[in-house]
Parts: sequence; structure tokens; C-alpha cells
Amino acid sequence: MSSLSTPDYETVEQASRRLAGVAHRTPVLTSTTLNRYLGAELYFKCENFQKAGAFKYRGATHAVGRLSGKDNSKGVATHSSGNHGQAISLAAKGNGLPAHIVMPDNAPRVKVSAVRDYEANIIFCKPTQSERERVLASVVENTGAKFIHPYDDPDVIAGQGTAALELLEDYPDLDFMLTPVGGGGLLSGTAIAASGMAPNVNIIGSEPEAVNDAYLSFRSGNLHPAQKRDTVADGLKTSLSELTFACIQQHVDEIMTVTEQEIVEAMRFIWERMKIIIEPSSAVPVAVAFNHLDMRNKRAGIIISGGNLDLDTLPWQN
Amino acid sequence: MSSLSTPDYETVEQASRRLAGVAHRTPVLTSTTLNRYLGAELYFKCENFQKAGAFKYRGATHAVGRLSGKDNSKGVATHSSGNHGQAISLAAKGNGLPAHIVMPDNAPRVKVSAVRDYEANIIFCKPTQSERERVLASVVENTGAKFIHPYDDPDVIAGQGTAALELLEDYPDLDFMLTPVGGGGLLSGTAIAASGMAPNVNIIGSEPEAVNDAYLSFRSGNLHPAQKRDTVADGLKTSLSELTFACIQQHVDEIMTVTEQEIVEAMRFIWERMKIIIEPSSAVPVAVAFNHLDMRNKRAGIIISGGNLDLDTLPWQN
Repeated sequence: MSSLSTPDYETVEQASRRLAGVAHRTPVLTSTTLNRYLGAELYFKCENFQKAGAFKYRGATHAVGRLSGKDNSKGVATHSSGNHGQAISLAAKGNGLPAHIVMPDNAPRVKVSAVRDYEANIIFCKPTQSERERVLASVVENTGAKFIHPYDDPDVIAGQGTAALELLEDYPDLDFMLTPVGGGGLLSGTAIAASGMAPNVNIIGSEPEAVNDAYLSFRSGNLHPAQKRDTVADGLKTSLSELTFACIQQHVDEIMTVTEQEIVEAMRFIWERMKIIIEPSSAVPVAVAFNHLDMRNKRAGIIISGGNLDLDTLPWQN
Repeated sequence: MSSLSTPDYETVEQASRRLAGVAHRTPVLTSTTLNRYLGAELYFKCENFQKAGAFKYRGATHAVGRLSGKDNSKGVATHSSGNHGQAISLAAKGNGLPAHIVMPDNAPRVKVSAVRDYEANIIFCKPTQSERERVLASVVENTGAKFIHPYDDPDVIAGQGTAALELLEDYPDLDFMLTPVGGGGLLSGTAIAASGMAPNVNIIGSEPEAVNDAYLSFRSGNLHPAQKRDTVADGLKTSLSELTFACIQQHVDEIMTVTEQEIVEAMRFIWERMKIIIEPSSAVPVAVAFNHLDMRNKRAGIIISGGNLDLDTLPWQN
């Protein structure tokens, strides 16, 4: 078990009150065509419209805001090649704190420039996990900044759960709620929110088959490490932590996997039909709903996790 | 002068009542980042979320719905390589009428398949204006279907004006209202709506420099034909009709032009920052606001005309 205590529904509710007016209450979109096609009602909670382009801003700004005065004077630090780095940078800026972001030197140009736009201090490192951790440790030591983990943190998880809380306030009687699962912060927060508001909704984590460590962990009861394989849904390569694994074991009903082709097809369908930009990770739960669940006459909420990707190379063009 | 009478504000108001519950009342989106960057308030009326993916559905379904019982039994027909064909197909389907769409045989696959999805009868022709008109005439003669012009039609213009009417209901005190201008249906309808609701708002038509026939017509007072030049905003290659030119002369304040590069940059900015898919034509008024107007401390409404384009080849990839 983790040494961190698993957050409960009260903590998500508190986070929601703290984030009012700080994070966007994102819109919920639907598609008539899609609903007719599936014979279902799908509700898309559009975190691609969240500040910094992803749900990560909720957890990041909640965790940064929760630092007490003494803890925060030296700012915050993290390592990230993607959305968490942007979210921490913007959250720190909003709180008037310095942010130090360790980024692999092969990070997409668009993500580096977003972090730079939010005025964070960027420290580049070699693109391996061990180098990221080593460089971050030295940054923390040199600056005194507080490390904010992308998901192994109860305040982050509680923040991520506020998207599901808002969706359930708008649509309380869902049959399914689907999210992607990478490190498990969004899935944990979502499941905890639902446990208090809609205990009968089926909570389904959605993962690429290529990196199915959360699926294997959930099935076996033992935490599996991340596989070092590639997937178009590059935000979902990380493994669960003990904390998120404990939340998921307690509150999640199922983890389902999809192929790379299913992910790309679902992503393109949403772009073409709904005219919104979603990143590949966000298409993973959509692909589950399209291909692996009997949705007929069901109502499902899907958390669209984000819309940050490099527009120069789209996955269907590879 | 046109033999058709120019529609007035009352006709737009009537169209709005007829379209309630038929066309989507599309959302109005804003971007904090963009507003900070321009020192302005921009309100995007998102017709890319309209049925069939563009404002064209408003005019099409209004015109189809206005056919009396006698006129409509043989269905409707038009020629189109793009949004108008999709809009007429869906409008006819909604009214239980057959639709015959003449399309050039080089039309993008995605547009052909959308028209096919709406169960219209597609007749392919060689990709020239004269062939399109010749084939359409023979279709109309053979089927008895009623031709619905994409913009040279008071019912179509009144329908297009309902987007601006909704935007002005939500935000009555705008300084500017911008739309793209191709055939002039959207610009005419917008200007007529504003003439009744907000006569002091500056109405600005936005056109690619490469096909600036509306600009030349507006400046000279004489209707210029479409230039046979290319532009990334392929929906804007058509010329004004006498009817739309009369509306524009009466109600529009200015027509402004932008370069191809300004269009592509504005389009990419909206995709990256707002996470919505807009077609190149929709980026034309955005490019005017970014580059050619002093927006500081102003409030502007922009009609985002549509989100239909081929996702295999994006303009910044050429």
C-alpha cells in the first residue's frame, strides 16, 4: 500500500469549491450523428477546452494552491514532456510562484513553447526516465522548489476528479463513465467523484493495448510496471503509482484496451464529425465506446482529457 | 439591379422563428489567451458546430422549408462542391424530400461521402462552372426538382442571417461584426440582421486578397466577376450575385482582404489555442481581426462559417 492516504469524495468536493472561478467549467458536447449511429447518448466533457488545453490544469492548480505559505516560497518543480508541465507552469504563474520544468530534449516544439509562454524555467535533459528524475532531484535541491508529481499526489487526484463531478452535476443518471488511464490520476479522481455522486455508474478505464500495464495490474491485483512500447496515445505510457492503483482497485469497475487503429479512427471521427481537436489519448475511451461496449440505449459520459498535439504530423498521416 | 427583392430585417426574424429547433443554436466561444493578446474581446459564433458542419444549413433548410406543397413534391436540386451540397442534402432529408446534387468529379472524398450519408442523389460532372450549370439544368428538367441557389435567393440569405441574430441577442453591444465573403449570402444576412438589431456595429466582409472580387465590386460600385485564381479558402472563390451585391452596398461598412499566409496562420492559431476545427474560409475574418483592424478595447463578433475540410492535407503542410 501507498504511504499516501487515498482521497475520498469529500476531498473532490472541496477541490471543486476551491477551483470555482480558477479552472474553467468546461462545456459538455453531444453529437446527434454519433448518438444515432450508436443508438446511445454520449456526453463529452471537453477538457480540451480547459486552461492549458487539458484536465491536468485542475490537479496542478489545486495542488499548487494547497501549498502553505512556507512551502511555496521557492516555487514548484516537476518533470514532464507534456500536459502536466504546461499545467504546472500556468498554475504557478496564476499563484505568482516560479516553476521549474524538466523536459526531455526531444519534447515536441509546441509543448516547449507553451511552457515557455507560461514563463516557466525550462531545464532540458536526456530523454530517459532516470535522467528526468536525476535532473529534477538536482533542481529541487538547488532551488528548494516543491516537487509536484503528475498523479501520485492526493491533491492532484482530487483536482482531476472535479471534471467528473461537474459532468455528474449536469447528467446524474449515466450508465457508464469512461476516461483514459496512464498514471491513473484522472481515472482515480473520476471514480472517487462517482463513488459519492452516482455509485451505480460503471467506471471504465481505457488504455492502449500496446501499453496495457493498468489492465494487467487491475486483473492480477499486482502493480505492473509500464511497458517500454510505443503508442500513438503518448500521454498514456506511464505506469500507475501505488496510490492510484489503490484508488482504482477500490472504485473502478473495468479497464478495457483498444488497438492503435481503433484509437486513430476514433480520433479522426471526433475531429470530422464534432469539429473539436482532441489528442490521441482522449480518443482511447471513445474507441472503447465505439468498439468494445454494448452502448445501445445507454447513457455514457466520456472525459475528453485534452487537445494538445503537434499539428504538423497527424496520426492518420503516418 | 436584381429582379429578386432584397430581404429586410423582418425576414431574418421570421427565419429565426422558423429555424428554432431545426437548426442548432450554436455556442459562442471566447479565448482568454487571444483576448489578452489582442487587448480586445472576441466572440466566435461557432457555425462549425452547426448541422452539416457549416452555416449553410441555416439558409438551405430555411429555403427548403419555404417551398410550398406544390413546389416541393419533386424535391430540390443544386450544384456544389462543398458545404451547400451537404446542407441541401440534409435539409431535404429532414423535410422528407429527394435531393439531387451535381458535384464536380474532383470534389474531395470527404464531401462526397457526407452528401452520400445524407442520402442525396449525386450526379458527377466535369469540374467547370459551365458543365455544372449545364448538368444541373438537365437534372432540373428531367426530375422537376426545384433549384436552390447557394446565395442568390432571399430565403437563403434570410436563413444565413439568423447566426448573426443569435450572436447579437447574446452580445448586443459589439463594435465589429466580421464574416467571410464569397457569394455574399452570409455577409448579406449578417448585415441585414445587424441593421435591425445593432445599426451602429461595423459590418466587415473578409476576403482573400487572391480572389478580391467582392472588395473590387464594393469599392467601384460595379459587380466584378470572380477571378479564376486559387486560394486556400476554397469556399470563397465565387462572385457576388446582383442580389447579394445590393444587400452589401446597402448594409456593409467595409470589405477587407488578407494574404494566404495570414489565413493559414490564423487558422492554425485557432486550432492550437481554441481546440476547434475551422475551415480555411472561416480563418479569413480571424486574419482580418489579427492583422488589419485596431482591436484594442473593442468587442468583435466573428461568424466561424464552418469546419468542413479534408483532414489528410492541412494547409500548413503544403
